[in-house]
Formats: sequence, C-alpha cells, structure tokens
Amino acid sequence: MSELQEKESRSGEPGLIQAIHVGEILCVGTELLLGQIINTNAAWLARQLTLLGISSYYQTVVGDNPDRVRLAMETAASRSDLIVVTGGLGPTADDLTMAIAAQVAGQPLVEHRESRAAIADYFHRLGRLAITENNWKQALLPQNAQVMPNHNGTAPGAILEFTYQGKPKVMILLPGPPSEMNLMFQESAAPYLEMRTATRFRHHFVRLIGIGESAAETLFLDLIDGQNNPTLAPYASEGEVMFRVTQLIHDESEPDNTAGLLAEIQKRAGDYIYEIGPRNMPALVKDLLLEQNKTISFAESCTAGLVAATFGEISGVSAVFKGSIVAYANEVKVNQLQVPADLLAEFGAVSEETAVAMAKGCRDVMKTDLAVSITGIAGPDGGTADKPVGLVYLAVASERGVEVRRMQIPGNRARIRKVSTLNAFDLARRELLR
Amino acid sequence: MSELQEKESRSGEPGLIQAIHVGEILCVGTELLLGQIINTNAAWLARQLTLLGISSYYQTVVGDNPDRVRLAMETAASRSDLIVVTGGLGPTADDLTMAIAAQVAGQPLVEHRESRAAIADYFHRLGRLAITENNWKQALLPQNAQVMPNHNGTAPGAILEFTYQGKPKVMILLPGPPSEMNLMFQESAAPYLEMRTATRFRHHFVRLIGIGESAAETLFLDLIDGQNNPTLAPYASEGEVMFRVTQLIHDESEPDNTAGLLAEIQKRAGDYIYEIGPRNMPALVKDLLLEQNKTISFAESCTAGLVAATFGEISGVSAVFKGSIVAYANEVKVNQLQVPADLLAEFGAVSEETAVAMAKGCRDVMKTDLAVSITGIAGPDGGTADKPVGLVYLAVASERGVEVRRMQIPGNRARIRKVSTLNAFDLARRELLR
Repeated sequence: MSELQEKESRSGEPGLIQAIHVGEILCVGTELLLGQIINTNAAWLARQLTLLGISSYYQTVVGDNPDRVRLAMETAASRSDLIVVTGGLGPTADDLTMAIAAQVAGQPLVEHRESRAAIADYFHRLGRLAITENNWKQALLPQNAQVMPNHNGTAPGAILEFTYQGKPKVMILLPGPPSEMNLMFQESAAPYLEMRTATRFRHHFVRLIGIGESAAETLFLDLIDGQNNPTLAPYASEGEVMFRVTQLIHDESEPDNTAGLLAEIQKRAGDYIYEIGPRNMPALVKDLLLEQNKTISFAESCTAGLVAATFGEISGVSAVFKGSIVAYANEVKVNQLQVPADLLAEFGAVSEETAVAMAKGCRDVMKTDLAVSITGIAGPDGGTADKPVGLVYLAVASERGVEVRRMQIPGNRARIRKVSTLNAFDLARRELLR
Repeated sequence: MSELQEKESRSGEPGLIQAIHVGEILCVGTELLLGQIINTNAAWLARQLTLLGISSYYQTVVGDNPDRVRLAMETAASRSDLIVVTGGLGPTADDLTMAIAAQVAGQPLVEHRESRAAIADYFHRLGRLAITENNWKQALLPQNAQVMPNHNGTAPGAILEFTYQGKPKVMILLPGPPSEMNLMFQESAAPYLEMRTATRFRHHFVRLIGIGESAAETLFLDLIDGQNNPTLAPYASEGEVMFRVTQLIHDESEPDNTAGLLAEIQKRAGDYIYEIGPRNMPALVKDLLLEQNKTISFAESCTAGLVAATFGEISGVSAVFKGSIVAYANEVKVNQLQVPADLLAEFGAVSEETAVAMAKGCRDVMKTDLAVSITGIAGPDGGTADKPVGLVYLAVASERGVEVRRMQIPGNRARIRKVSTLNAFDLARRELLR
C-alpha cells in the first residue's frame, strides 16, 4: 500500500481526506492579550509546522470570549486546511475552546470515558481525593474527536476532522501550558500530521560554536542565495548558531541529496562545526563520555548550577555525571574545592589561576575523569575596568592536565550565563576528542 | 481646559478626535510565521495598551506579503479604534508595511526631509559613509503622518489618523527590533495615546502554592463572577498559580479600592498565598534571607543544580547564597554531604532519611544558616512500584532542626524538576517565616 493510499484509508470518509498544505495557529487566552505571558507556543508550533512542510500565513490571538473564539476559528477554517488551537482547555469557567470547536465542527459534546478516568487517575496520583466539579468538564469532548491524552496535566486534546464551506478541514486542539502542549503535539499531533502532508522536508542541522551568526552567514552567503533543493538557511536558536540544510521530498524513500552541500559547508566552516545532526552540545558530551566510559563533574561560580542543571535535563545522564559543586562564595571555593586561599587573594575569584585550581580541586574531590570549572562576572554589578562584566574563565581538568579558556561575553546576565554554559560543555568536548 | 477638551483641541478636525477604547496589535514578519523568533513585541505592546486602559481583543501575525498585510490592516480597522503595527519598516525589498499603511489610510507617500537627514546622520555616526539606495526608502512616509524618530536605528515610525468605514481610526507603525520599538513607543507613541485614552488599570497579583488552579478558582468562584470593579481573574503562569485583582481607574490619583477584595481573598486562601505583589518565590526567599541576615545552600540530587541555577538568576543573590552541592551520584552524597553510607544502603537515595541527612550535611559543610535538600525520581526511568517516578523528598535544615516534605509530582522529567525546585524555595520560605 502506497503512503498516499494509506493516508486515504485512514478515514471511513474518503471525500474528507486530502493532504494538508496550509495551516494556521490560533492561541486562546486573555493573559496573552494582556501581555502577561509571552506567546512562546506560537513560535514553537510554527517551527513544527515548518518542519512538517505545512505553510503558514497567519497567527491569531484572541481572549477567552466565545464569540471571538468562534469567529477566529471560522475565519481560519475559511482560508487554511488546518487550524492548530492552543489554550482554553482548562477546568475553569472561562475555558471554552473545546465547546466552541465542537460547534464549529458540528459535533455534540459527549463525555469521553477514558479521559474522565485519566483525570481521576491524575488527581489520585497527586494525592488529592476531592476532585472539584469543574475538572470533569475536561472530559467533555466532540463526538467524533480523536482524543489526545495529556501526560503532563488533566486536559485532553482533540483532533477534529470536519467539513467547512464544503471543504475538508482539520482542527487540532492543544492545552495552553507549554509542557503539556509540546508533549501532546509530539506524541499525538505530529504523527497524525505526518500522515496528512504530501511533501515534507528532510533536515540536517549544522551546529557551530566559536563564530557569530552574521559571520557564519557571510561564509555561506552564496550557498544561501544560490541553492534551490536542498536549501541552506540560518536557523534561529537562542545561544547557539545553527544552520538548516533542507531537502524537499515527497516520499521517505527518495535518496538524500544533501551530501554535496554538507561537504561544502564542512570545508568552509569545519573548525566551528561541532555537530551535523540532532544532538546539542550537552547531549554530544554525554555520548562522548559514555563511549569513553568516563565521568564528569563541574565546579561552577557565575553559572551557579546552570551547567549541572542543563546536563541534568538529559535523561540517563547519571551514568556519566557524578555531580557539581556550586561555589558562589569564596569560602566554598576554598573549603569544598580546595582552592588555596592565598591564590584566591592574590589573583581574585575571576582569574585563570582560580579557574585552574577549581577544576583541579573538583576533579580530586569528586573523583571524576573530567572536571570543568566556570568563574566569571555575570553582572549587572561587580565589573571593574580590569575585570568587566562578561569576563569568564573556564578550565577543564583531566589526567592530561588542565586547559583554560578566557572569554569576554557581551550581553546581559542571562546571556552571559548561557554562553558560559555552552562553552563549559565545548571545553569538555574538545578534551574528549583529543 | 479639561482633559477631554484638551484632547479635542489637539486636532484641527474635531470630527476625527475621540477617545481610543479598543486597540489591536498586528505584527508583520515572515520570521514570526516560521517560528524563527518568539513574538516578544506582542506581549510588550499588549502590556503597554493594558496600562493605558486600552482594551485589546485580537493579536495578528502575518508575513511580508502585501495582500495579507493590507487585509490584516483593514480587518483590524473594521473592528478597533487603534491598530499598532510592528515590523516591515526596514530597507529591504520585502519591507512593505509603511507603503501599505499609506494606502489603507488613503495618503500618498512623500519624502520626509528630517527622516532622510536622520538616516544620513545615523550612518555617519556608525562610520559608514556609503549608504545604499534602499536605505532612503525609509524616509518615504504617508503625507499626513506624525513622524516618530528612531533613536536606536534608521527606520522612522509614524502615527496615522484616518477615517475607515466612516469612523476615525489611528494606526501606529513601529519598527520590529525590540530595542527600536520599545524606545519609540515610550518616547512618542505612549504620550500620544495618553492624550487619547479615558481609562486605565491598576493590578495586584496574588501568588499561591500548594493548591491547584481549579481548586483555587473554586474557592473564589463568587468573587470572580460577582465583581465588577475591582475584578478578580485567574492569571496563567507556568508552574505557579496566580490570580489578578484589577481596578479600572480614570486617573492615577483615584484611591486604591482593592483592599476589601484582597482581604477576602486572604481570608479564604491565606494558607496558600505566599505573596500579593511582584515577587516570585525565589525573589521572596532572597528578600527574607537578606532581612534576617541569613545564608542558604542547597544539596540537590534529582534537580541536578536547577534550584541553584534558579536562585542564581537573581542578581545580587550572592549576599545570601553561598553555593550548592549537586550530588547526583551516591558517592557524592557520602563524600561531599556526609550522608552515612549505611543509611543510604538501608533506606535508598530517595527517602526521607537521606533527604534529612543531605540537608544536615549540607548545612554543616557549607556553613550556612539554612540548607535545603532535594532527592527524588525525575524519570522517565528509575521508578519502582514502591518509589514511582515523581516521588520527591525535600528537607530544610536550620538551627531549629530539620523539616521534611514528601511529594508525588505528576508529569514528565522537566515538570518534576520544576515543581521540586519551587517547593525547595517554599520549604525555605516557611522555615524563614517560623
């Protein structure tokens, strides 16, 4: 059975099924209109639609108002094949999205038994036995909905297939909190959409470190402008410089034609490229440690635990990660990291000497193969003419000795901590590749 | 002269002038539709409109496409008094916003001499003497525009007053880069809008912990439904339960009338409220430590540095925060935190006994007034029937002794770590308030 046949056979109503080309995003929430939260959902979903090969021409935000939610859904249905809706699925009185979507799709709301059981189970696991009446509302779903379970909350999502103005439409309803929305989209909505798109993209992500985005773009300018399929484009990603090589395909069996372009990119920027693939810097370091059967620890001053916390985001990291000492105060550098007090007094906390002593001390006390230290001035206060805000020293200690990196990082406190964190992993990576 | 008279006298066309009640935000940029950047402009502008007392019912994003930009402007003009547009004012060929706005407002584009001079001056200060032809395009502005100078870039902004479908409308055009947009809005657009608005809002934020959003709403249901001015509404904020008390005012000198409602909220949910005001949980803990002249440290297992990293986000925290020991491996719990090896063997890493020993040991070795420990199973692997994923023990050690909290946190790894972190600070807060 061909992919297209398979797509068509998924529905009992063949007239309803066609490929999704154009989708748009509708976010429901008065808190968005009031500017109380930043709409990260729209950007995240927009990236997912782009990766799926679905074009998008509009994003809309409306508040928790039934008339305007309905109008926005109808407007979207009149011009796009797919409407991805977030927000307004919660238990409270102003969460109206599901009920209005049911009206727009022409389906009555019915109680979904499994969702009711899932809500009861969720509260049970929470240890809350008294479930308020409004929580059960979340189990009322449009009659023909494909229900998407919520593994990070109580509100289930739904995929609705319906006809609007004589044309087949799909509406995907997701909860507003990003942790619930992202997981549900990846688990349930993306697999559905993959079956419904005629073209898709094959992406390779080129990840660079040690070069700015505009400098990298200058290196690749003719490749960005002159390519048709595959294409090369910068891929905005905070704190990382990434480019995306994209091949348009109609079928997974089409051969990958990106090798030539990737080789040219490698030739021009090989020194800066740390990965062509899905792994970010911490994941790459974890894999290298696993391969080499080595362990790591961190000694953090200005990053204050961000390096450890970033490593801890990766599940299964405990095989290689023993721990970290966050030495914010100088006495912790002395007592827990064995930095000599006179060295600290002579060179200061933010110095090559202290970075080296922190890394060595950390490696000794934590008994790991590698230890990486970070000490710097994250600001906004604390800088001097000699040691301005953004000055950061990093060091990596291994059985081979110690390597140091000095950086002057522009930007605010959050950016300085983030760039320092990325470089801590890069220092470990370079040591592991030696 | 009354405020209203003053407003009316500002224009030679009294028929055009009336108070602005409803405004909406239109963001132009293909990079937003592709999800390459997060739309922080919409949230920032929405907050400004809210503070000015301008209601907002829609936000829209369109790409750099002339037909869709025009349609979006016309749709907005058909339903709102004010349209605030960002993006598409730059020098490149796809920056079309100003030209289309001129069409919608029925005004020809003419060269604005001062803006041309300002562009020349900007490049001169930058040291670039060769100005490309496309830069001059930015000096072409609608004939009757009130021009807003750009002190952080080259593209001037514009305020357009025009009639659409027989009604007076205002369109405010701002550049897309936040640094240019924010400054121009504050310098030029806000003063204009202050003259044109009749009402504004005063907000108080009520922050709760230990209760879910729907349970909290049940406590307040009659207050949410029955109040007119001030109003009470849930305020979505990930990982936190927040409510907003809002008073509609016409003048900053009007007295605050929210005390009665805030007192009633306090009476019903006082046990769960940790702050009525702007501070989140870590900021509150920092202030309590400063007031009491105390220091804190953390011993983290499953959070892997996230508690320390969250505290480290606050600038100036070094006065109270000595450091943290991330004890991912058991040997670090034994060696760095003095957890007895036989206790660990008997009760396991995730147990009340280990949490207590970690907090005590951390307080001793870090020499702080308080130490908070966190040990749990963040998943996705590692859970058992006895100790399922999401089981977390937290403890706080002080001169008074040790307090423990046991939690069973639903959700994925990221959520379990986040909720654990919030509760680590809450445990410290409760200890500091004893």
